[in-house]
Amino acid sequence: MTSYPSVAADLALDRPGFTLPRDLYVGEDAYRFDSQVMLKSVWLYACTVAHVKKPGDFYVFELGNNSVMIIRGKDGEVRAFYNTCTHRGARICGTATGNAPRLTCPYHYWSFNLDGRLLAARDMPEGFDKSAHGLRPVALENAGGLLFVCLSENPPPFDRAGQDIAEQIGIYNLDKLKVAYVEELIDHANWKLVMENNRECYHCEGNHPELLKSLDGTGFGKGLPEDNQSGEMTGDELAIEAQRAEWEKLGIYRELIEFPDGWWHRVARLGLASGTVTQTLDGQPACRKLIWPHGDKVETSLSIWTQPNSWHHFCCDHVVTFSLVPLGADKTMLRTSWLVHEDAVEGEDYDVDNLTAVWRATNAQDGRLAENNHAGIRSDAYRPGMYSNEEKLVEAFKSFYVKTAKAALGME
Amino acid sequence: MTSYPSVAADLALDRPGFTLPRDLYVGEDAYRFDSQVMLKSVWLYACTVAHVKKPGDFYVFELGNNSVMIIRGKDGEVRAFYNTCTHRGARICGTATGNAPRLTCPYHYWSFNLDGRLLAARDMPEGFDKSAHGLRPVALENAGGLLFVCLSENPPPFDRAGQDIAEQIGIYNLDKLKVAYVEELIDHANWKLVMENNRECYHCEGNHPELLKSLDGTGFGKGLPEDNQSGEMTGDELAIEAQRAEWEKLGIYRELIEFPDGWWHRVARLGLASGTVTQTLDGQPACRKLIWPHGDKVETSLSIWTQPNSWHHFCCDHVVTFSLVPLGADKTMLRTSWLVHEDAVEGEDYDVDNLTAVWRATNAQDGRLAENNHAGIRSDAYRPGMYSNEEKLVEAFKSFYVKTAKAALGME
Amino acid sequence: MTSYPSVAADLALDRPGFTLPRDLYVGEDAYRFDSQVMLKSVWLYACTVAHVKKPGDFYVFELGNNSVMIIRGKDGEVRAFYNTCTHRGARICGTATGNAPRLTCPYHYWSFNLDGRLLAARDMPEGFDKSAHGLRPVALENAGGLLFVCLSENPPPFDRAGQDIAEQIGIYNLDKLKVAYVEELIDHANWKLVMENNRECYHCEGNHPELLKSLDGTGFGKGLPEDNQSGEMTGDELAIEAQRAEWEKLGIYRELIEFPDGWWHRVARLGLASGTVTQTLDGQPACRKLIWPHGDKVETSLSIWTQPNSWHHFCCDHVVTFSLVPLGADKTMLRTSWLVHEDAVEGEDYDVDNLTAVWRATNAQDGRLAENNHAGIRSDAYRPGMYSNEEKLVEAFKSFYVKTAKAALGME
Repeated sequence: MTSYPSVAADLALDRPGFTLPRDLYVGEDAYRFDSQVMLKSVWLYACTVAHVKKPGDFYVFELGNNSVMIIRGKDGEVRAFYNTCTHRGARICGTATGNAPRLTCPYHYWSFNLDGRLLAARDMPEGFDKSAHGLRPVALENAGGLLFVCLSENPPPFDRAGQDIAEQIGIYNLDKLKVAYVEELIDHANWKLVMENNRECYHCEGNHPELLKSLDGTGFGKGLPEDNQSGEMTGDELAIEAQRAEWEKLGIYRELIEFPDGWWHRVARLGLASGTVTQTLDGQPACRKLIWPHGDKVETSLSIWTQPNSWHHFCCDHVVTFSLVPLGADKTMLRTSWLVHEDAVEGEDYDVDNLTAVWRATNAQDGRLAENNHAGIRSDAYRPGMYSNEEKLVEAFKSFYVKTAKAALGME
Repeated sequence: MTSYPSVAADLALDRPGFTLPRDLYVGEDAYRFDSQVMLKSVWLYACTVAHVKKPGDFYVFELGNNSVMIIRGKDGEVRAFYNTCTHRGARICGTATGNAPRLTCPYHYWSFNLDGRLLAARDMPEGFDKSAHGLRPVALENAGGLLFVCLSENPPPFDRAGQDIAEQIGIYNLDKLKVAYVEELIDHANWKLVMENNRECYHCEGNHPELLKSLDGTGFGKGLPEDNQSGEMTGDELAIEAQRAEWEKLGIYRELIEFPDGWWHRVARLGLASGTVTQTLDGQPACRKLIWPHGDKVETSLSIWTQPNSWHHFCCDHVVTFSLVPLGADKTMLRTSWLVHEDAVEGEDYDVDNLTAVWRATNAQDGRLAENNHAGIRSDAYRPGMYSNEEKLVEAFKSFYVKTAKAALGME
Repeated sequence: MTSYPSVAADLALDRPGFTLPRDLYVGEDAYRFDSQVMLKSVWLYACTVAHVKKPGDFYVFELGNNSVMIIRGKDGEVRAFYNTCTHRGARICGTATGNAPRLTCPYHYWSFNLDGRLLAARDMPEGFDKSAHGLRPVALENAGGLLFVCLSENPPPFDRAGQDIAEQIGIYNLDKLKVAYVEELIDHANWKLVMENNRECYHCEGNHPELLKSLDGTGFGKGLPEDNQSGEMTGDELAIEAQRAEWEKLGIYRELIEFPDGWWHRVARLGLASGTVTQTLDGQPACRKLIWPHGDKVETSLSIWTQPNSWHHFCCDHVVTFSLVPLGADKTMLRTSWLVHEDAVEGEDYDVDNLTAVWRATNAQDGRLAENNHAGIRSDAYRPGMYSNEEKLVEAFKSFYVKTAKAALGME
């Protein structure tokens, strides 16, 4: 393994309660380390089963120098392979998505089955062994329809996260959804700053007018009853308790799962602002065909956050799912997909602008904040700063990063 | 301090009378050294008091990874701070100029007084000390209205340069001027080549038709009487002597100050071409409201040059001021500001195109020359070349660079 | 010499019959090594005599940080000089081609004779020696009108390649041609992958419909009689034998010269598809004025390939000549020139679109293939792959590269 002495030195300086040392956010070494070591040691969210709905559907996921094809086989199984021909190394899939009856390299037309086996390679020398030239596989797991890949040959455990997520999102039937819209936004900021931005709402007021329309005061984990250690409940907290009682009657309430020890997932059913039942500008369904069985009157959404690169919101009428891919020390792609019922018809049942308005606006606002954060951290004047009380999930992300990074460097 | 062995080795090869070794001009190491070490050890011209005229006016100056806010306080004092919030490091000022009653970070709304003290930070943990979280200051000095900053914690002396400059430009009342136009030009050349280009007129003929209209034969230091060591004066030199006698009567003549030992400033009152009284295409005032008390008939301008990044021309009707900021090994920003009387009205008293024509043309021509110079120096065929007699001020700049760089590396 | 340990380590891993280790294709170190060491140790094709037809005509050839002027003197000789003034290092020729009575630097107007001697340098200090400040020469050789330069001070032998090429292309009279069109195409791929793409037609079918119109089944070296070791000739091979007999009658047939031991040139007279006599879409001359003495009925073209950066096709009516210049680890310029009879008149005798259609289309297709190849090789999943039987000339190029690179690093 390449060693990264400057990264290791900075990791050793990290302090609980404070942001990271500067070069872990903005340095080129840290970016190389992240994309070549740290991010290969973990499960990364790639896409949903709805992105590869039919046999032959593929979806290309890229991380640093690696391109991975996620493809549904004729047997219905979803598999992942490196997007590199075993002949002279050309990319096989040249587009981000598509459908192919088999995987044929466009260079010299070597072709592979959807399960990766080499089918045809013309005019090779004596002794060439086709069976040794199949596509190289990548580890893939499915959590209730959310697909995760890991570029390590020894992926970390997946089971508990997969189970916790699957149990709660099952009700939204990802298998029966379709992709209505995908946005790919480039933020000129380090991916960890884009993540940190996602993990707190300390910045929401004043920055996110569209999002705040459907977010209630406790949105995204602010002031939940379980945080209260004073013994006496506030009015807001009593209201949450009442709401949870109602959700229990519907059979949709489970306790908050908040990054259990050693794990990388948070699952929370949360309330929405009074009178709103989904994350749209007017709080009303953006798609007429609902995707769960409980109608359009329950003021709630279910959210999943995973370390280190995704978050997802499940509403009565649509799902919106976000993933990050670092593209450089100061460049990150945020890919957002909106899913609706597979039978919904665009223009009749839903309007894409209305469906996507809240998060397109919020993503753009967050992108500017993260860019600004990155620019300021580059300064000689930057010192790790203290997190506020409302930034505890930012620190959870930071701690996951530091712990995983140290482990990858053999530091603990 | 990081050491820069390849930079030190090249500095040791420098010879009097010759241009620098190649990699000091075009190498990436030299750029890192310049922007992270050498340029932080000196006073850099940033802007004028007219750029931050009213309380709350700010001007952002950037050098490499550092962004500095120069801001006028409610008490009228101008101060400088790093543009980095002490919470999570975001940039506070997101625009190059503006006015703000206080400095509020756009991320989480921490706010600071114009003197840098932290006013408000919401929801911080017990024990958080507001008084320890003020903005980090940057050294700033004022030379008769020209503002200089230094990013070192131990800035070099300023007094003599400040005094020499202030004494001579006082007559032009920078406090009573306003910024009429700012041009930001990107030259694809190393900043030192842009500086070298500025320090000689050996290239002027054939390259600068617009500038030559108002420049007399002795312009910018060619053939001044004090250079003549032959004992016998030429006709040009006699004319200069006569002009100086006239300036003495007006009380505006002082001897040439030419980078006194250990200092970094040159101050010269020079003549203009016959019949021209300012640096415009027709040699006549571009602004009706004059900025000095001696009318519009005196064929002279006053010029200031500083090491390592600025020059300035003061005419009867306007001031034009230039500063360089390196943006990369082969990329430099030249920022030029034209100032006129604060009461002058655009469209009535002055026309921006006419005011700026000479230097916009000259800047663009010089940019191409510097780019061409940079491109040629990259070649394996480049060897340090001999300066001509007319390039002695180029060598003065080069020597300042070498001396300061060696000092920063502990080489002398 | 700078040493390149990672390049040397990868060169040592190279295996016959397989593509190169990954970082030799896509690594930054390999690019620095190629442009600063390996490519300076060999002869590089630059242009033809027709590109510098008249005294004073110049052509600028660039390699990495070096710019070379190729210029025809008043004595008719073609010479090459570094494009760097001996004063302050500025580029002298600022355009890619042109004509100049002498070489005058645009910065301070130093001027040089077309043979490189310094003519004029104004106002230099006592003791300045003009004769020591001429332009620095670059080695240049002429192979029947194809001009090659070498940036080494000890160029490798040229004679046999020069002679073999000159003998066979003489009939096409490069001295009597003119440049009709030049295309500069940027491929986002390593230069060695662009070369490998050029050295096989395993990829032609399905990728190059335009090219295939005039290419016969044996085009560019597929299945020539001399490859057949079975003892029994196929029908195609018999047809080739017949064709060669006809060419012998015309005096234009010589045996295939295929990269003789230690040399870097391949010369082949090949057939064209039945009914086609030149490389155009309809197989008919694109220029009415022919450039050889054998009319427009012979189904043949002559091709030259050189290691490491060029190829050339000579038809009855035009010549098309290709050269590569690496611009970065993943960026290569392919410069293609089409030449026709010097007396041919555009619009009357030839139409540029028709003349260039086949190779403009083919170049663009190959560019995409090389880019795709480069992208896929960057993956962790890439392993050196086995060449097919039809890729033996790819391997010839690869072996030349490995051998030359090892020699430059003192590895053998």
